[in-house]
Amino acid sequence: MTTRADGRSLDELRPVTIERGWSSQAEGSALISFGGTRVLCTASFTNGVPRWLTGQGKGWVTAEYAMLPRATNDRSPRESVKGKIGGRTHEISRLIGRALRAVVDTSALGENTIVIDCDVLQADGGTRTASITGAFVALSDAIEWGRERGYVAKKATPLADSVAAISVGIIDGTPMLDLPYEEDVRAGTDMNIVMTGSGAFIEVQGTAEQAPFDKAELDRLLDLGAKGCADLTALQKEALGR
Amino acid sequence: MTTRADGRSLDELRPVTIERGWSSQAEGSALISFGGTRVLCTASFTNGVPRWLTGQGKGWVTAEYAMLPRATNDRSPRESVKGKIGGRTHEISRLIGRALRAVVDTSALGENTIVIDCDVLQADGGTRTASITGAFVALSDAIEWGRERGYVAKKATPLADSVAAISVGIIDGTPMLDLPYEEDVRAGTDMNIVMTGSGAFIEVQGTAEQAPFDKAELDRLLDLGAKGCADLTALQKEALGR
Amino acid sequence: MTTRADGRSLDELRPVTIERGWSSQAEGSALISFGGTRVLCTASFTNGVPRWLTGQGKGWVTAEYAMLPRATNDRSPRESVKGKIGGRTHEISRLIGRALRAVVDTSALGENTIVIDCDVLQADGGTRTASITGAFVALSDAIEWGRERGYVAKKATPLADSVAAISVGIIDGTPMLDLPYEEDVRAGTDMNIVMTGSGAFIEVQGTAEQAPFDKAELDRLLDLGAKGCADLTALQKEALGR
Amino acid sequence: MTTRADGRSLDELRPVTIERGWSSQAEGSALISFGGTRVLCTASFTNGVPRWLTGQGKGWVTAEYAMLPRATNDRSPRESVKGKIGGRTHEISRLIGRALRAVVDTSALGENTIVIDCDVLQADGGTRTASITGAFVALSDAIEWGRERGYVAKKATPLADSVAAISVGIIDGTPMLDLPYEEDVRAGTDMNIVMTGSGAFIEVQGTAEQAPFDKAELDRLLDLGAKGCADLTALQKEALGR
Amino acid sequence: MTTRADGRSLDELRPVTIERGWSSQAEGSALISFGGTRVLCTASFTNGVPRWLTGQGKGWVTAEYAMLPRATNDRSPRESVKGKIGGRTHEISRLIGRALRAVVDTSALGENTIVIDCDVLQADGGTRTASITGAFVALSDAIEWGRERGYVAKKATPLADSVAAISVGIIDGTPMLDLPYEEDVRAGTDMNIVMTGSGAFIEVQGTAEQAPFDKAELDRLLDLGAKGCADLTALQKEALGR
Amino acid sequence: MTTRADGRSLDELRPVTIERGWSSQAEGSALISFGGTRVLCTASFTNGVPRWLTGQGKGWVTAEYAMLPRATNDRSPRESVKGKIGGRTHEISRLIGRALRAVVDTSALGENTIVIDCDVLQADGGTRTASITGAFVALSDAIEWGRERGYVAKKATPLADSVAAISVGIIDGTPMLDLPYEEDVRAGTDMNIVMTGSGAFIEVQGTAEQAPFDKAELDRLLDLGAKGCADLTALQKEALGR
Repeated sequence: MTTRADGRSLDELRPVTIERGWSSQAEGSALISFGGTRVLCTASFTNGVPRWLTGQGKGWVTAEYAMLPRATNDRSPRESVKGKIGGRTHEISRLIGRALRAVVDTSALGENTIVIDCDVLQADGGTRTASITGAFVALSDAIEWGRERGYVAKKATPLADSVAAISVGIIDGTPMLDLPYEEDVRAGTDMNIVMTGSGAFIEVQGTAEQAPFDKAELDRLLDLGAKGCADLTALQKEALGR
Repeated sequence: MTTRADGRSLDELRPVTIERGWSSQAEGSALISFGGTRVLCTASFTNGVPRWLTGQGKGWVTAEYAMLPRATNDRSPRESVKGKIGGRTHEISRLIGRALRAVVDTSALGENTIVIDCDVLQADGGTRTASITGAFVALSDAIEWGRERGYVAKKATPLADSVAAISVGIIDGTPMLDLPYEEDVRAGTDMNIVMTGSGAFIEVQGTAEQAPFDKAELDRLLDLGAKGCADLTALQKEALGR
Repeated sequence: MTTRADGRSLDELRPVTIERGWSSQAEGSALISFGGTRVLCTASFTNGVPRWLTGQGKGWVTAEYAMLPRATNDRSPRESVKGKIGGRTHEISRLIGRALRAVVDTSALGENTIVIDCDVLQADGGTRTASITGAFVALSDAIEWGRERGYVAKKATPLADSVAAISVGIIDGTPMLDLPYEEDVRAGTDMNIVMTGSGAFIEVQGTAEQAPFDKAELDRLLDLGAKGCADLTALQKEALGR
Repeated sequence: MTTRADGRSLDELRPVTIERGWSSQAEGSALISFGGTRVLCTASFTNGVPRWLTGQGKGWVTAEYAMLPRATNDRSPRESVKGKIGGRTHEISRLIGRALRAVVDTSALGENTIVIDCDVLQADGGTRTASITGAFVALSDAIEWGRERGYVAKKATPLADSVAAISVGIIDGTPMLDLPYEEDVRAGTDMNIVMTGSGAFIEVQGTAEQAPFDKAELDRLLDLGAKGCADLTALQKEALGR
Repeated sequence: MTTRADGRSLDELRPVTIERGWSSQAEGSALISFGGTRVLCTASFTNGVPRWLTGQGKGWVTAEYAMLPRATNDRSPRESVKGKIGGRTHEISRLIGRALRAVVDTSALGENTIVIDCDVLQADGGTRTASITGAFVALSDAIEWGRERGYVAKKATPLADSVAAISVGIIDGTPMLDLPYEEDVRAGTDMNIVMTGSGAFIEVQGTAEQAPFDKAELDRLLDLGAKGCADLTALQKEALGR
Repeated sequence: MTTRADGRSLDELRPVTIERGWSSQAEGSALISFGGTRVLCTASFTNGVPRWLTGQGKGWVTAEYAMLPRATNDRSPRESVKGKIGGRTHEISRLIGRALRAVVDTSALGENTIVIDCDVLQADGGTRTASITGAFVALSDAIEWGRERGYVAKKATPLADSVAAISVGIIDGTPMLDLPYEEDVRAGTDMNIVMTGSGAFIEVQGTAEQAPFDKAELDRLLDLGAKGCADLTALQKEALGR
């Protein structure tokens, strides 16, 4: 039997904690941990929308992802100092934004904008999936903040569903759930799965880092991912007190 | 029965042409068309590798993707003028590089570098999948160029397999192959599939643009993608005279 | 007698082809070749002018020039990746814009903007002169496009004349017309000449790369340039079906 | 008597907490709070020095400061997205580096580099002074880390003293210690004071935001600052277990 | 007794010259010299204010500082070529702006904007203090320019006071006034003092470059600075013909 | 007869002054005035050449041009603040470099680098021609500086000739020499002419700003330019004490 370095079973998440309302400045926030990965997610609510969207009665949700320079084992130069954002940062920011928008009914949100910031304070694999999972909690609170102040209609339901995300991968031929950095670098295939609380797929991104994979492997990864997202959905509900 | 605007059946590619050797400057090149999408792919072979890879006996393959400003229906500002590369450009460049590296045996390539440039001259959907498919042809010729000049060992097999890519999507509930722009904007789910010539997956990227999708839909999209990639593999072989 | 590597006489152009309407996206376009130099010229027509010109009843024509990274024998880094535009690119973009504006009656054009993009797909000397010559064809078609849709007045004559350009130079003491890259690098003096279809000068840029030149040499270069521009004017007329 | 909104006396610090070793990645770290201001300070130790310092037997200490976009009441655009670092960020990064270097004996440090990152997770006034105070704790631990691994000599004393910093200001004519944001914006004069643990000045920066100040006011501010720095020095010692 | 290389006494300024009205383009200007340091200060007056200030009846004064590449003994790369402004430039620009605004009554200025440019043509220590001192002269003339044209009210007093600045420092234990480059690099403590014409402090910035300083040293430096600023105030008055 | 606003005859230069050795920092310098146009030219001499030129026994001369923000009648934003260099700046920097290199024998210069900076302190037309003319004086002195220190061989002749430049143009049909800003904006054709001291052409750049020009006009402009360059050559000789 395959044993994982941290003693987890193959379909088990790392310890997950969600500190809801970590920030006293943001309209919604959560400090989420997937094991050693810690991401501060804040949601900034502003009444009004970007000019290109004005007058359509619809809201806007977008996201930005970044890592502190020493979130990782070696210090990386700041993107602000380099004067440009790297491809990986861009890619993850876009992914988080798409994932959240997939569960937002922008008409129900009304002409309001919510900007999600996911800043990785410490990284140990799965930073993008932790970001999406924590961002949903922050987003949810920001919407309630807007509702309490009358920016969002009392009876509107801007969140059609919840959203969570998890990584899966094949290490030495064995599919596993929620890879820490140590496993991630050894994975032959690596996949990120984003799902709704009700169990449908929002995004599936699988990449053969070393060896192409077949349909049977893909199916096994999707099953693991569905299990992990369901577990995260339960934790989100608990954090949100539902 | 669903009829497509251009009269194709659901699992049919648009007309594909591959003008191999279009450039007289590059070591390998192909002007590939998927319907109205036209991408110039060039492969630049240089002996030697970046400093961080020196002395390991391994080669390096990387890719850059870009669109001419008037490739699309409306003119976009040049990224060189804006002074930064957009997230989409970054993301696709990284995808093309990963897709090609998945079939390259860098030890067999030896300490040589191949840079692939995919410049979209005209865009009508599927520019990233056309880029990957055309890039493989250019890459293949650049490797032969290196072999003829003795940079690549006579009997080495740097290409473990071929690689091709196609888009699939669900329009009004119906899964379809190879979406032109007009269909792409209407797609509820959009997926790009990258496969080896022998039929294994290299990359699967599916996104619910409008409605989350279920496992059955995902399976149908994967089948369509496999069919499309197989057709493209045949066209690549033909272009390469094999 | 001086023999040129490609067998041309001293006052003979390389083979010139103009594929008018190459792009199905742009309002005007031409893929022009001067021997191995190939430039895709597109003209983007938009109704309205930049804010600083609004309300004066005048139009605006501007141009941007760029080279694909592997247009040349060695691959150059992309300016978008470097995050800045080089001096040469800037200089040529400005030259193309000035050359076109010299034959445009902006009052007759009305409050419309035409942006010309000249992207060098393959470079073998004379890319700026090929760009100007091809850009005129694209511009001409874009104006007709605007006229057909009523943006340009039926009887207006926004084009006061045509414009074409050619390079000339002195190689080993001998003045010659239309230098390919191989001759260009050997030229002691290098000159670009932009002329109207009716034979007047729009721009004369002569540079002593190696040895200062005298008035007699300058006169001979101007004569050669006038001959070349006249030949190009005839080819433009043919391409435009006049 | 002047009453402060939070009930503090004029020469009293806000509640200060120092979570030493917050990061499991960095060689030294501290999450420091001055009331609602929270700064994550990490120290990255690397053996070796920048090229310009090589071979002199001296080490190097430098610092970078940044704020998360939603550290403040309104979200600020990311400097990485804007592509440039603002003047305030530059200024504070330089101040932190100077303050730390003032107590470092670079010869005793040996040819090692320590980069301090101060990332403001939440801002409520005094972010630069909290950064300096927390950075010293992180720096101290990073030096011990280097000593344990033999990069720093067993008996060397790279830290000649400790360093702490605090803000002072004049609000409605009354000098006060440690201004939160609310007081900071109302201050007529604002001063940051950096001192060694033994009570000498490293940096004094006083600015008349509204009204020029006289020598008597300056003296009173310096006294308050000395008191605050002494209190912080005690807290640093406690955090470091000395 | 300490002798200075240039024979000055400890509290003596270098020769100071102020060529008022050096520029025939700017609304106010002064070429100021502190010994070998020469700064061209121009003040650009425009009627109106930035959008964020519109409608409040207040004016705006801001400043930009820069050095010519060969102002110093070794040539520095241009910040325009590097594509970013360094921390030192930012810091000094902000300092100059703050210093000037401290004596400006923006309500009396009315909705007008004055931009001060301080360009260091030659640098020999004290460039920021020479900039502030010269900028005041340029600012003063620009305000009169505006008054003559009716942009500033006839009886308004936009300048509440004058402003001048000087550097002081401790070299080999001895406090001295107005350090040229040669002394500046040897200073253990370095301080810049900005004062009003009436003798109050606007800004005090003292930094221990090598050794922390105590209160007695600080007091001595402040006295020297006050003396120097008073001398400069007299020279400003003379230049302005008052 | 055409009368010019400043009373000059058609072939007369504005008052030209050359303050040689204006800078005490640079190895060569000149503050040159063409009427109201004032340019500070410095030449920075360094022993050694850029890496790409090392070991060939040849030197390198390059130039950078810039304008102070308030050199002109309206203040322009700084290129350093904008983060990019404009096309005009690039173009003129390249022109100055080419012009100087045309009279430099890089083998005689030896492996030394000279960087010329031309900073326009005040602009009133002809800034690029004043820059070239003044730069030659600075360059000449920098070479002598290198010779005195033994970097340049005693008997070497790195300067094959001198170089000067002047603008000419056609205003209301009349060709004129040395256009101030006021005439420049009215010019139908504008030409910059760079010549050697011995009367040969280095660069000829003529542009029809409003109306195309014919060969007769071109000839008249070249004659005027030759006259102006000869006058400037005499002034350079005088400044250099030859």
